[in-house]
Amino acid sequence: MKFRRSGRLVDMTNYMLHHPHSLVPLTYFSEKYHSAKSSISEDLTIIKETFEQHGIGTLLTVPGAAGGVKFIPKVEYKEAKQFVDELCELIAKPERLLPGGYLYLTDILGNPSIVNKIGRLFATAFGNRKIDVVMTVATKGIPLAYAVAAQLDVPVVIVRKDSKVTEGSTVSINYVSGSSKRIQTMLLAKRSLKEGSNVLIIDDFMKAGGTINGMISLLEEFKANVAGIGVLVESEGVEERLVDEYISLVKLANVDIRERNIQVMPGTYFQLVKDKKIGEN
Amino acid sequence: MKFRRSGRLVDMTNYMLHHPHSLVPLTYFSEKYHSAKSSISEDLTIIKETFEQHGIGTLLTVPGAAGGVKFIPKVEYKEAKQFVDELCELIAKPERLLPGGYLYLTDILGNPSIVNKIGRLFATAFGNRKIDVVMTVATKGIPLAYAVAAQLDVPVVIVRKDSKVTEGSTVSINYVSGSSKRIQTMLLAKRSLKEGSNVLIIDDFMKAGGTINGMISLLEEFKANVAGIGVLVESEGVEERLVDEYISLVKLANVDIRERNIQVMPGTYFQLVKDKKIGEN
Repeated sequence: MKFRRSGRLVDMTNYMLHHPHSLVPLTYFSEKYHSAKSSISEDLTIIKETFEQHGIGTLLTVPGAAGGVKFIPKVEYKEAKQFVDELCELIAKPERLLPGGYLYLTDILGNPSIVNKIGRLFATAFGNRKIDVVMTVATKGIPLAYAVAAQLDVPVVIVRKDSKVTEGSTVSINYVSGSSKRIQTMLLAKRSLKEGSNVLIIDDFMKAGGTINGMISLLEEFKANVAGIGVLVESEGVEERLVDEYISLVKLANVDIRERNIQVMPGTYFQLVKDKKIGEN
Repeated sequence: MKFRRSGRLVDMTNYMLHHPHSLVPLTYFSEKYHSAKSSISEDLTIIKETFEQHGIGTLLTVPGAAGGVKFIPKVEYKEAKQFVDELCELIAKPERLLPGGYLYLTDILGNPSIVNKIGRLFATAFGNRKIDVVMTVATKGIPLAYAVAAQLDVPVVIVRKDSKVTEGSTVSINYVSGSSKRIQTMLLAKRSLKEGSNVLIIDDFMKAGGTINGMISLLEEFKANVAGIGVLVESEGVEERLVDEYISLVKLANVDIRERNIQVMPGTYFQLVKDKKIGEN
């Protein structure tokens, strides 16, 4: 059975979208559709042009016998800015302010469509780094970590603050929470992370950075490397930030709990894109 | 600027895949591409045929002024069976057995590609029910819940076993864990669930069903309805099952911790598909 170009384009688009950052040999498609490699190449050119034109991402062609094509998801600056502006507006509502300067984000983090867009943004920012695994801490960061990992085609590991019988033996560290200055514990299942892994840390909220700093210490225990840090919301106005290098999408400033006032603005992501430090081809 | 059919097909496929179970008016596409509605209709016919031919799902056409097209993700029986057979093989390794008859699933649940396939399977099973929200309990069920919710285009709410400052006021219940017979507490943020919501419960593992039973009690507190229950793995050989109606993908039998022996087989999903009780158009 032969497949027409129109049908191939639809099925290939579906396949590429479901396999980001994976190298797909051209023979995979030519065998699946009983089509010549030259026809598949033409199909891929159409898909690449359409992806780029509509801000979906791009296709990278890797030449040679071990070559193929790779889908790199990518959000354009304009779309990213518009999305984060909407997010800022959503977050700026005073009823979100909770005791301790925390923010009610449960509804936003409970929306898979928003979460997946956030994943695409971070995948754009970190897409050109070598990443083996995405790490987060239970529980709010979990959906964000999966959304990023799906776009980067890597697994997720979840650090916990309590031990679970269903994970086997664990490695634990103590860390100082940046804002409350209390000593806390976090742990990770021994078999969940290989030595030398390049780890992207993702979390929903960062104040002083104590939790993220804890994850960095944990990575040292596993002899793993920090490949990047991404947070959805960072809160400004902290005397001493424990973490220097990170990408945030949203920044809070002038949090005034008594007056129920917050100022919400786009995070470091946009400055870094402008400075051409992230999101490059 | 006019768009050619080939480019439209690629972009429309991307759009439909990212908006499952949402009604998209034809005018959305005809305006986006400056194309006649008749051309858009032809495009959609090609996409529908390709989706059905390759087991991606189908497109439903809703006629009339308020009409449009809706993408219904759907996994074919054959693909589902093959995927779950592979999952069974992966799960059947004796080194996964943990004290208490639990199973180490962290690596499987940490793989976004597996998790998303599980999400598509549950979306196939529950796709024709009225569902407003997917509920799970922290933490292992979270990625599965998001994967299902993304395919059904509904939000996720997460029940917790400990209170968090960042969620505001909560409703809590006590429940009896089915296997350990201990009394435990679970809670849900007050503002996270509306009265009368139709709720799909998703979890990773069910033994006697105490945790799921607890979620059902919590739904009663919120005057919400159980629209369905889906679990990745159920463990057989429990004297008294607290939950009757559920869909499982994988079933454990003859768990012998001393001999490090487990028997793993496909769950109720496949019996229900065969009996035509789920997955109907």
